[in-house]
Amino acid sequence: MLGFNEPEFLSQLASTVALRHPIEELADRLVDEGFDNLFLVGAGGTYAQMWPYEQLARRISTLPVRAVVAAELAVAGDATLGERSVAVFTSVSGTTEDSLRAVEFCKSKGARTVGFTGYADSPIARSVDVALVSEAKAWPFDPQMLLLMGRLFARRGEFEGYEKLADELADLPRVLLDVARQADAPAAAFAEAHKDTDYHFLVGGGNLWGFTYLYSMCILEEMQWLRTTRVHSAEFFHGSLELLEKDTSVIVFQGEDETRALTDRAEAFAKRVSHDVTVFDTRDYALEGISPRFRGLLAPLVLDTVMGRVSKHLERVRDHSLDLLRSYRVMDY
Amino acid sequence: MLGFNEPEFLSQLASTVALRHPIEELADRLVDEGFDNLFLVGAGGTYAQMWPYEQLARRISTLPVRAVVAAELAVAGDATLGERSVAVFTSVSGTTEDSLRAVEFCKSKGARTVGFTGYADSPIARSVDVALVSEAKAWPFDPQMLLLMGRLFARRGEFEGYEKLADELADLPRVLLDVARQADAPAAAFAEAHKDTDYHFLVGGGNLWGFTYLYSMCILEEMQWLRTTRVHSAEFFHGSLELLEKDTSVIVFQGEDETRALTDRAEAFAKRVSHDVTVFDTRDYALEGISPRFRGLLAPLVLDTVMGRVSKHLERVRDHSLDLLRSYRVMDY
Repeated sequence: MLGFNEPEFLSQLASTVALRHPIEELADRLVDEGFDNLFLVGAGGTYAQMWPYEQLARRISTLPVRAVVAAELAVAGDATLGERSVAVFTSVSGTTEDSLRAVEFCKSKGARTVGFTGYADSPIARSVDVALVSEAKAWPFDPQMLLLMGRLFARRGEFEGYEKLADELADLPRVLLDVARQADAPAAAFAEAHKDTDYHFLVGGGNLWGFTYLYSMCILEEMQWLRTTRVHSAEFFHGSLELLEKDTSVIVFQGEDETRALTDRAEAFAKRVSHDVTVFDTRDYALEGISPRFRGLLAPLVLDTVMGRVSKHLERVRDHSLDLLRSYRVMDY
Repeated sequence: MLGFNEPEFLSQLASTVALRHPIEELADRLVDEGFDNLFLVGAGGTYAQMWPYEQLARRISTLPVRAVVAAELAVAGDATLGERSVAVFTSVSGTTEDSLRAVEFCKSKGARTVGFTGYADSPIARSVDVALVSEAKAWPFDPQMLLLMGRLFARRGEFEGYEKLADELADLPRVLLDVARQADAPAAAFAEAHKDTDYHFLVGGGNLWGFTYLYSMCILEEMQWLRTTRVHSAEFFHGSLELLEKDTSVIVFQGEDETRALTDRAEAFAKRVSHDVTVFDTRDYALEGISPRFRGLLAPLVLDTVMGRVSKHLERVRDHSLDLLRSYRVMDY
């Protein structure tokens, strides 16, 4: 597959699920010692990636869980952040400045801090109370977050079947490799058909809203300099729909949670206006070895894998490197 | 002023602050009876308008307060929604279907429901436990939300000076009329200069993030069919900034809360790349009679008034009615 390093893909993912036991020990210790609330802190893509876990908490748990923007937390604070709080951070490089400032802010309030990163000697890994380190460049952090949140909620009596989920996650490298292989041809076809498309309209909901935001902002805008709009499928009918024309490229992300019907509603409407609606649906993938009841939880991971193939093909057909930045970490600010 | 009905503007606003006493009685009753958490439920513009009050709660209160999307709440639920919950709704027409479904959902869980609307005999007014009715078409709902949240937090010992704030809000019609008058000339100038601009990049943070989302999605996209991207100023550096070119129209919304520095940072960067950065800053308005410490809380109201003038001038120069919808409530879905 184009731009796909299979051994690296497998070993990076394996390194994330290999954190199961330290993650469980951490979760057990937190529950045993007691804590009042959980802050899931990120910046850009890592903020987006926290959203599914606030959303999961809203659905199944009475624990106060908030996904928060690192830079905002550090300046505006939070009245519930204190010694009985736990703050979780993720950063591939372990150097994201906004997140590092937020770690220091949380520590100054007495909160316990946890960091997932790929570099043990990075500033964030050295700054947090507990650093859990996967292989360098491993992304996304959903496996670690599923293990952490799953175990916490299981220990609180709010999530049944955690052991089975954690067992099944051990197979994630193979499961997602199958996804990547199956996604490659449709991804190439999408890219070829949209070589000259300069505007995409992205829709997603439920635990895929974070990924919708991420793919719009951090991939199409940041890495391909393409204009986009992004809208939550539950909000689609309250504004953005008026933008649709018959040739508007609409990208729909569809998963398998309770909000599926809301995205179906947006998709059906979009197809009545535009003839260029592309649906990326996790239901199209077998995910062999994953129990039906856990499939919905894995949607952000599956879509990340699928759209990773799309990104590589867009890079090729548009001759625009995904690594080319003209502003971020290029200009000072 | 163009498309400005001064008596109506004044009387609509007066009708919102006239709700002070019933709002205070409601807040007092809720506090006296006790409740565990607060859901601020909306759809599109009314969802956006709830955000400042979740953000205020995060900063000053330990009460769990969540701004939620009506359609999503009704299908995905919330584990903390129950008999000890209060759910607040706003709807100008009182007919928004997503919100009406969410009212019924909240009631089915035993939550107490409160609705602000302009029509006493509307479905939402008739469905909620407590309906607080302002003049028909009165918008936005910030005065009512400031009174409700202010009183609740005051009664919880988390907000000092509520009485003074509520007293000062009585003058809001005059204060905002002054804002509209002052904003009209710059609004006209902005519209003239952007008559042919087909893409705007919107940035805002803090308690203006909701308004940034609203102005992008519900005004420029929905009512002017203009393409936009919208980004929280704390997230600006994590993607969207790469889109900036020297002629990109950047609209910055600036308020007066703790996050001002984050928006300053985004503005300064944007100005280094683009020569078309327009800042709408609440600091430019005197707000005579409003204490300095309350100015930040009023930022969404001030910006709504300012941008209301911009919308009217855009409508004129672009010859595109703000009332022209090709999809919403025109096509079935």
